[in-house]
Formats: sequence, C-alpha cells, structure tokens
Amino acid sequence: MYGVVMSTQERLIETTRELLWERGYVGTSPKAILQRAGVGQGSMYHHFAGKSDLALTAIRRTGEEMRATVDRLLGADGSAYDRIAAYLLRERDVLRGCPVGRLTMDPDVIASDELRGPVDDTIAYVKGRLADIVQEGVDSGEFAAHLVPREIAAAVVATVQGGYVLARASGDTDAFDAGVRGLLSLLKPSPVPTA
Amino acid sequence: MYGVVMSTQERLIETTRELLWERGYVGTSPKAILQRAGVGQGSMYHHFAGKSDLALTAIRRTGEEMRATVDRLLGADGSAYDRIAAYLLRERDVLRGCPVGRLTMDPDVIASDELRGPVDDTIAYVKGRLADIVQEGVDSGEFAAHLVPREIAAAVVATVQGGYVLARASGDTDAFDAGVRGLLSLLKPSPVPTA
Repeated sequence: MYGVVMSTQERLIETTRELLWERGYVGTSPKAILQRAGVGQGSMYHHFAGKSDLALTAIRRTGEEMRATVDRLLGADGSAYDRIAAYLLRERDVLRGCPVGRLTMDPDVIASDELRGPVDDTIAYVKGRLADIVQEGVDSGEFAAHLVPREIAAAVVATVQGGYVLARASGDTDAFDAGVRGLLSLLKPSPVPTA
Repeated sequence: MYGVVMSTQERLIETTRELLWERGYVGTSPKAILQRAGVGQGSMYHHFAGKSDLALTAIRRTGEEMRATVDRLLGADGSAYDRIAAYLLRERDVLRGCPVGRLTMDPDVIASDELRGPVDDTIAYVKGRLADIVQEGVDSGEFAAHLVPREIAAAVVATVQGGYVLARASGDTDAFDAGVRGLLSLLKPSPVPTA
C-alpha cells in the first residue's frame, strides 16, 4: 500500500518536472499535470497542498540533479580550463533549454520568493563551484591574474543560459555551440579545435 | 475617425508588447490584453485575426526597436572593443529581461514558425552586427587572430541573454553585471575598471 502511494506521488513530481521544463509554471495547469500523470485530483491534494507546493518539490529535485551533474563534471581531474570546458561542452538537450534557468522567465516563479528560492540556490551553487575553479586557475598561473573568478564564473553560466536562448530562437543547436566555442577561445588564448 | 481607429490598434499592440514581456505568450490571455488596453473584444477582432496575429505585430515591433538600438550602439565611433562594450554595458531594465529573448522560453512561440520568425531574425541581426565588428577588430589586430567572429558574437549575445537569467534568479542586477564584466575582461586582456 505504501508503495502505491509513493508511486502516485512520484508520478506527480516527475510529471510536474517535465511540464515545468516544457511549458513553465504559468503554462502548466493543475489539470494538465493530473491528465499527464493519470492521477485524480483527490490524489494530488492528498500529497500536495496544490500546484505551488508540487512545483516547489519538483523544482527542488531538478536543482539537486543539476548540482550533482555539475559536481561530477567539475570534480573530475584536469586543468581548470579542462573542467570548465567539460561543463560547457557537456551533452545537453540544447533545444529543450535549461530546466532551472527557464523558470527565471516565468512571472509567477519570480514573483514568489519560495519558488524562486531553489532556482536561485542552484544557479548560485553552479557559479560558486565554477568561481572556485577559476580561482585555482588564477592561482596556478593557468589564467591571467587580472581575471575576477566570480565574474568569469558568471560569464560561463550566462553563456550556457544565453546559449539556450540563441539555439531556441534559431531552432538549431549550432547557435549554442558557437557561443560556447567563442567563450572557450577567449578563456584559452589559443585555437580551439573544431568539435 | 481614422485617428480613433489607429489609437485603439496602437493601444492593443503596445499592451500586447508589455504583456508578452511580463508574462510571455502562454501567460497572456486575450482577455488580459483587452482588459489592460481597455478595449472591447469586437475592436480587437476588427484589427487583428486573434491573439497570434496581434502578438506577431507586437513581436515584430519589439524586434525593430531592438535592431534600432543595436544600430545606434554599434554604429558609434570607437574601437571594436569599445563598441562591443557599449552594447554590453548599455542601460537595461535588467530584471525585466529581454523582451525578445524571453519569448524563446515560450512553448507556443517556439512551436510556431510564424511567431518564432521575428525572434530569430532579430537575434540573428544582432549577432551579425557584432560579428562584423569582431571581424574588424581581428583585421586591425585589436583582437587575437584565432578568434572566430561569429563565435565571439554568439558568446556576447549569450552573455547578455544569460545575464538576464542570472539576474532574475537572484533578484539582483549585480549578477548580470558580473557576467558582462567577466566577458569584457576576457575580450580585453587587461583589467576592466570597476563600474
């Protein structure tokens, strides 16, 4: 019995994560969640206070997954440049955009400190991890001494987030790749090999 | 009489531009447009076939304004770096995000070639103008010869678009400024003065 209850709850959370990624918070109705999850309204309100509560759980989980991915990429061996390149070049579902970043364009998420919280925390975490690596690279002489780690980290995360915008505008992942390669060519003052 | 008709049409277009910027296409109902514009449903359908038609007119106008702004900034005197810096540092309503770029996170805009068209055209135009300036800088020796103009241009536009994501996530314009300063410090290998 407990298993069945968990399964419904899980289905609601995973469905909400998908819909938030595809359509955002404003574009996701409770009805759409219930329909796609194949769950009745009573079940949803048994587990969650409402759409906002369910979305908060979904956003937190998406944020945790992103932090785990970033830890894996940035915790690997290699130079500071190599680890930043691994983050920038990691395989992505580019045309779907970022499941965390896209929520910043959602007026109802931004209007709610509670919903914005895990979005802010996740992006701040990624920036912080990247800034530490840039600092390592500056300390080791790999990067120029005048670079400010938190500024470079912000530029790296912004290039990824903005890369999704460029790719979705053109309907082509090349636009994302071009921005990433441009930033890498600036970070490492030598030609970046063609992917 | 013609003046009155124009005024209603204008009010519909300008209201739609505001709502698309604030809430996106998915988050903007025809009813919300009519209410904010103070216009009846009949007037809207007199001028436009519907929400999609009105949005297309609004998006086109927003794109034209952005192209004019970019022409002004990039057409000014100065080195390639100076003009790119002018684009990156121009005064922006950062926490509102980009009225064009934000539409790429809108599922209904991306699903419609017609609505996505002016978004794609506008962003492609800005990237093209920036790429020309990077090319000038490479040709004159101001920028390193290995830089690929279209890649640097994509990184510049992505930093701006992603900068909005960072700022809106944190609720603070500093995150935007940090990314821009980071990119500028990479473009010009010498310390960027504190703003």
